[in-house]
Amino acid sequence: MNSTLVNTCIRFVRPVTGPVTAGHFERTREAVPELADGQMLVRVAHLSMDPSQRRQMMPGVVYAEPLQVGDVMVGRALGRVVESRHGGFAPGDWVRGKFGWQTYCISDGRYVERIELDGFGPTAYLGVPGNPGITAWVGLHTIAGVKSSDTVVISAACGAVGSVGAAIARDIGCRVVGIAGGERKCAFAVERLGYDACVDHCDPRLAERLAEATPDGVDVNFENVGGEVFDQVLARMNDHGRVALCGLISQYNLAQPHGLRNVAEILNHNLRVQGFRLANYAAQRPAALIDLKRLLSEGAVTQEETVVDGLERAPEAFIDLFRGVNVGKMLVRVAAD
Amino acid sequence: MNSTLVNTCIRFVRPVTGPVTAGHFERTREAVPELADGQMLVRVAHLSMDPSQRRQMMPGVVYAEPLQVGDVMVGRALGRVVESRHGGFAPGDWVRGKFGWQTYCISDGRYVERIELDGFGPTAYLGVPGNPGITAWVGLHTIAGVKSSDTVVISAACGAVGSVGAAIARDIGCRVVGIAGGERKCAFAVERLGYDACVDHCDPRLAERLAEATPDGVDVNFENVGGEVFDQVLARMNDHGRVALCGLISQYNLAQPHGLRNVAEILNHNLRVQGFRLANYAAQRPAALIDLKRLLSEGAVTQEETVVDGLERAPEAFIDLFRGVNVGKMLVRVAAD
Repeated sequence: MNSTLVNTCIRFVRPVTGPVTAGHFERTREAVPELADGQMLVRVAHLSMDPSQRRQMMPGVVYAEPLQVGDVMVGRALGRVVESRHGGFAPGDWVRGKFGWQTYCISDGRYVERIELDGFGPTAYLGVPGNPGITAWVGLHTIAGVKSSDTVVISAACGAVGSVGAAIARDIGCRVVGIAGGERKCAFAVERLGYDACVDHCDPRLAERLAEATPDGVDVNFENVGGEVFDQVLARMNDHGRVALCGLISQYNLAQPHGLRNVAEILNHNLRVQGFRLANYAAQRPAALIDLKRLLSEGAVTQEETVVDGLERAPEAFIDLFRGVNVGKMLVRVAAD
Repeated sequence: MNSTLVNTCIRFVRPVTGPVTAGHFERTREAVPELADGQMLVRVAHLSMDPSQRRQMMPGVVYAEPLQVGDVMVGRALGRVVESRHGGFAPGDWVRGKFGWQTYCISDGRYVERIELDGFGPTAYLGVPGNPGITAWVGLHTIAGVKSSDTVVISAACGAVGSVGAAIARDIGCRVVGIAGGERKCAFAVERLGYDACVDHCDPRLAERLAEATPDGVDVNFENVGGEVFDQVLARMNDHGRVALCGLISQYNLAQPHGLRNVAEILNHNLRVQGFRLANYAAQRPAALIDLKRLLSEGAVTQEETVVDGLERAPEAFIDLFRGVNVGKMLVRVAAD
């Protein structure tokens, strides 16, 4: 069967040192080979666009397996098994794994999970009960130890992680303040995501706006952006505040990082700044999933998505991620299954 | 009796915005008034020079009680009670408290502790079994959770806190690497304080030297200096490293703080950066004192001091603190009791 199938791939063709551009990618087409024993063929349905993928495109960075020039671009994805010579998977199964930017992936099943849909649409498993949601849960509960009396600030408020974080913190009883880029996203944060307030980081009076939105200071900062935004939030932190440092999306495309000025706040206010990568918190996944599925069932969180159609538009979607074009999880629909 | 006594004071006469200079202080002399009921008269013996005092001299900073222009300069000190109308203290008692930069202090006994000498000289109680030693203990044990397998880097290696920190970390079994300013201090750190290695932060090849001294990376950074030194150590941190942020002495005299570049290391290596001020860790004092007195008794730590003679030289000693002139605890001897 496979010999008649064509796999379209987006390949990584140039190391990234500054902004990611279309020139870092190239499209190829090739025949799908026959399966060997223990393999399965996955038709890719949706690609997850994650800022962390950029690090694998940089020369000499140790973060996850670095990409080699010419490799199919890496990325988490959802798909369906179309043919299987693997004992653990059958045709029709929904699966989640690092299938990469291509229409078909031959997999030996390692690091692939079968998804039981549980009443949620399949793309949810790249969102609320997927890595973004679990990241938000771990950051707030495990890293920041959030309490109902806390004022919580979440930057990249409308992003895949931030949008779920808002729901988690609100469910706990916190005052939740977002930081997002532009009036449209700030309005969305308050109206759709339930933030008590949302501050526009493009506003030249960001410090003043942030002070108005956090009259009692900030106890927890769920930091996804870094740079000037992080500096401004540090200046509002209360004694014994906690920073869950989850991302620095404002920094990834810069040749020279922003120099953080408010380091003395960490000392003067007895702050704890904890960087974290979800891969180190596997033990927290079961508890997080129970809580996230409860929030989904109660309607306390909704799966927010920005879906871009067509594999060929994956580079554009990925570039837009760093421009903050998306609201909620940025996905690329590869096949309309 | 008191009416015949003259109190010499060093007063704070100008808010500090840049480097501290002799012009921020003024000497005055005045008669010591009679004691009221509940008061005692303390003859000040030694002043403790602490970098944190500078913050009280800055306009608009909330850290401890800010100084008003004209106030006697604040500061922790050792002294002896010479006259008492206070039920809890008797003439001859050694006492420790915020007596300030003066030869005599009238005190109502609040925040004053009587010191039992326990076989150590009185100035020890401004050093190893005093706040600097307890700060080192809390930073390493409570904040950083140091383990025997850790490589520990301590900046301001020869300072009041760092010199005790080295002994604590060595006692636990760690590899202990210091950072200090100049060859003389680096040699002292290795020969007298027991550091396994000490790197000169004036060396233009600091990054290279630090890498040589920490071949297995850095697990714990006891940070007293900040600025470029902190940036360089961050770049050497291992996954799940801990930073006990105790001081930023390189930054206090600057109008514009150093912008910290290596913030991404906190994210990428799952680091925990915890600022701390000793005042928030009263519960740890008893355990710390038992351990510090054990180390003193075993000779595993010695009380390192730089003593400047005469109250009138207190401004000079304080200014020198920021120039890193001292080795061990910087003290001013006010009276030779």
